[in-house]
Amino acid sequence: MLEDLKQQVYEANLALPANNLVTLTWGNVSQIDRESGLFVIKPSGVDYDKLTAQDMVVVDLEGHVVEGDLNPSSDTPTHAFLYQHWDQLGGIVHTHSKWAVAFAQAGIAVPAAGTTHADTFYGDVPVADRLTQDEVDGAYELNTGKSIVSVFDREGIDPLAVPGVLTNDHGPFTWGKDAMDAVHNAIVLDVVSEMDFHTMQLNPSQDIHVPQYLLDRHYFRKHGKHAYYGQSNR
Amino acid sequence: MLEDLKQQVYEANLALPANNLVTLTWGNVSQIDRESGLFVIKPSGVDYDKLTAQDMVVVDLEGHVVEGDLNPSSDTPTHAFLYQHWDQLGGIVHTHSKWAVAFAQAGIAVPAAGTTHADTFYGDVPVADRLTQDEVDGAYELNTGKSIVSVFDREGIDPLAVPGVLTNDHGPFTWGKDAMDAVHNAIVLDVVSEMDFHTMQLNPSQDIHVPQYLLDRHYFRKHGKHAYYGQSNR
Amino acid sequence: MLEDLKQQVYEANLALPANNLVTLTWGNVSQIDRESGLFVIKPSGVDYDKLTAQDMVVVDLEGHVVEGDLNPSSDTPTHAFLYQHWDQLGGIVHTHSKWAVAFAQAGIAVPAAGTTHADTFYGDVPVADRLTQDEVDGAYELNTGKSIVSVFDREGIDPLAVPGVLTNDHGPFTWGKDAMDAVHNAIVLDVVSEMDFHTMQLNPSQDIHVPQYLLDRHYFRKHGKHAYYGQSNR
Amino acid sequence: MLEDLKQQVYEANLALPANNLVTLTWGNVSQIDRESGLFVIKPSGVDYDKLTAQDMVVVDLEGHVVEGDLNPSSDTPTHAFLYQHWDQLGGIVHTHSKWAVAFAQAGIAVPAAGTTHADTFYGDVPVADRLTQDEVDGAYELNTGKSIVSVFDREGIDPLAVPGVLTNDHGPFTWGKDAMDAVHNAIVLDVVSEMDFHTMQLNPSQDIHVPQYLLDRHYFRKHGKHAYYGQSNR
Repeated sequence: MLEDLKQQVYEANLALPANNLVTLTWGNVSQIDRESGLFVIKPSGVDYDKLTAQDMVVVDLEGHVVEGDLNPSSDTPTHAFLYQHWDQLGGIVHTHSKWAVAFAQAGIAVPAAGTTHADTFYGDVPVADRLTQDEVDGAYELNTGKSIVSVFDREGIDPLAVPGVLTNDHGPFTWGKDAMDAVHNAIVLDVVSEMDFHTMQLNPSQDIHVPQYLLDRHYFRKHGKHAYYGQSNR
Repeated sequence: MLEDLKQQVYEANLALPANNLVTLTWGNVSQIDRESGLFVIKPSGVDYDKLTAQDMVVVDLEGHVVEGDLNPSSDTPTHAFLYQHWDQLGGIVHTHSKWAVAFAQAGIAVPAAGTTHADTFYGDVPVADRLTQDEVDGAYELNTGKSIVSVFDREGIDPLAVPGVLTNDHGPFTWGKDAMDAVHNAIVLDVVSEMDFHTMQLNPSQDIHVPQYLLDRHYFRKHGKHAYYGQSNR
Repeated sequence: MLEDLKQQVYEANLALPANNLVTLTWGNVSQIDRESGLFVIKPSGVDYDKLTAQDMVVVDLEGHVVEGDLNPSSDTPTHAFLYQHWDQLGGIVHTHSKWAVAFAQAGIAVPAAGTTHADTFYGDVPVADRLTQDEVDGAYELNTGKSIVSVFDREGIDPLAVPGVLTNDHGPFTWGKDAMDAVHNAIVLDVVSEMDFHTMQLNPSQDIHVPQYLLDRHYFRKHGKHAYYGQSNR
Repeated sequence: MLEDLKQQVYEANLALPANNLVTLTWGNVSQIDRESGLFVIKPSGVDYDKLTAQDMVVVDLEGHVVEGDLNPSSDTPTHAFLYQHWDQLGGIVHTHSKWAVAFAQAGIAVPAAGTTHADTFYGDVPVADRLTQDEVDGAYELNTGKSIVSVFDREGIDPLAVPGVLTNDHGPFTWGKDAMDAVHNAIVLDVVSEMDFHTMQLNPSQDIHVPQYLLDRHYFRKHGKHAYYGQSNR
């Protein structure tokens, strides 16, 4: 069932340690098959070097396991809620990558401080609200998903234009058109977090944001119908 | 004698350089056989790439060598005291991993600042008191063990819930149900030290602790009878 | 056409990931054949591990593609303008290397703070002016080139003596007698940015520049007719 | 001539990139044959991956080449002066390792802030005085050596007890009983510089030195006739 998708999700999961985004078994990647409404996700707590494509778990949009011998990632309800709520998403990644976590723990959005950021994220990467005790004691992972959607709704951010978020006290989630695209965004989020951390230390008293017109230029150089970066317009 | 245990301790020692926790010959791992009351530990000052399973040294709970051609780690009396005092421990690790050492040298506990920490350590990782001149001039390594137990006793911390400590001016010790579990905790302690350092720089004027209810949720998601992370509940 | 040059530019491009200067597909290297007035540059947005020498694109000094099946780097007009304006340049490199980007985003020149810097850069590595909205909305990449030349002209800096710059809000460009020499300078710029960042943190209230006479000594130890570093004077 | 020594010096040089202490061709290692009064040193500006044992240069204590087809390291006069002045030295290393350079550029001694430091360096690693214009314009590399000896003499430091120094505005030199021992000390100096940097950031208002009695204990645990670390007392 969904063998191709399992293979793709498996490969995208392996791209996390290959890009130094995970420690131990942390992190998980999923990708959805919109036709069937099912998504495939990494099993919970399995070592990356023991993982096989067949270990991937098939889950429906309620987060119920449809196929698989292993428990799915404990973050599965977060993925399910995001797929349900934002039907443009094809893949989702969660990591505890070090620099993005530092911002998440500090409760500070990753500022759009340069063109490296602007090439991928059309604005600051926001921080979701800290969950209340009721939200944590209840359906915690589902409520994590709700807190993500909530900050995008409140601030009027398009989740395709800013394909990532920091969950407060926790770490980053990123997404994209498929699992590998979401991994790409996880890589960029961590590296811009690292760059921005040092920029803020160099310039503690100053707003380090790029001007809006530069954000526009770089973002639309890579996205939308006027994009001219890469080879896709050939 | 205890050949299986030697092999396990040998492999756990090699996991230290594999996870970038050691420089040169620094660091040591031990594991105890509770039935015989003997533990196996790395020899002192031997290069990791020359180490063999047969080099491991068998020691009793007084720290006396029972078998082995080499001197045991100079930190052996610290291990012996912890095994004696806390009979739940199965394995112990000592490293000079860089980020944990920075906190140990600063005399600052590693704060429970995020879910990465909460997944493994149920609260701050404390700093043992600085040893007095008498304690250092006397049975130094034994007194290091005593200083560790002392801070846990005084602050009422369960050593299984917070499986690690910073020895003041020195560096981290971690422990677990066996040697490899203690290595796991050494890895986590260093990475949360790194994350917390940057969080504190981003947010110098603010308490960066997570709320208690989030600490509870994440810790008990992975530990105890209601744990639902991983595959062990299948 | 220009097969040897394509091979050299290809190898210089591969030296970027080999020296940890790039994430994903970022960065590009070019080298010019002054006789024909054509330069060879990396194609836009191609993975480094899929790149071949035959993928390199031949471009004229107006930035028009002369040969090649792929789009050239989107930064091609910047390279073209620099080759046009400074006819001593043989190779150019652009990266988003992390430490140099931190300074570019902060709008702070990389100070000549030690002999490591002085061996390669005869003075601070300057920051080009932030582009105006008109400059960004117009011929952005060309105007990036103009902003680079402008800061060298205004400050009277010899581009061969200081073979690099930070483009504001963006990142470093370096150059040299050929592509590999420009890569060398990109490596040095990132490492001195890293060293200087930490020096500035250690010494926040102090000017960290070396004295002019030490800058002179180290620079001319490696450059010019009295150079005595290396083997070229044998 | 001195073939064994060339091989040892060659291997010690290769240990620099293997331990991430050098960028490009930077750094050099030498070792002396006290009987003949000759030392062997890396040639100047040669890539580490092209280096052979036969490339090593034999030099006398005046710094004159006795054998070799290549120019010796431009820092040869510094090595020669240190060997002349301190006849206990067997090997010398110079690097531009990143963390030690940050302290050298800041003109700040690396403080004895923990047992990691105390195991190798019996006290702070001092900074040599900034050279005057006359010293730099004259026999610069020789004067670098003199500035090193000068700070040890003035502060009454035993160069065997503190086997390293930071040359102001420049970087570290370390030494030892032979070349590989000096490399060992270069590794330790960089890692304690890194640890101390972070400790100072965590604790900016406090003296981070260890008490003298702990410095004594750790240093003499590894050095002198009462040493009990390692296997040499068996």
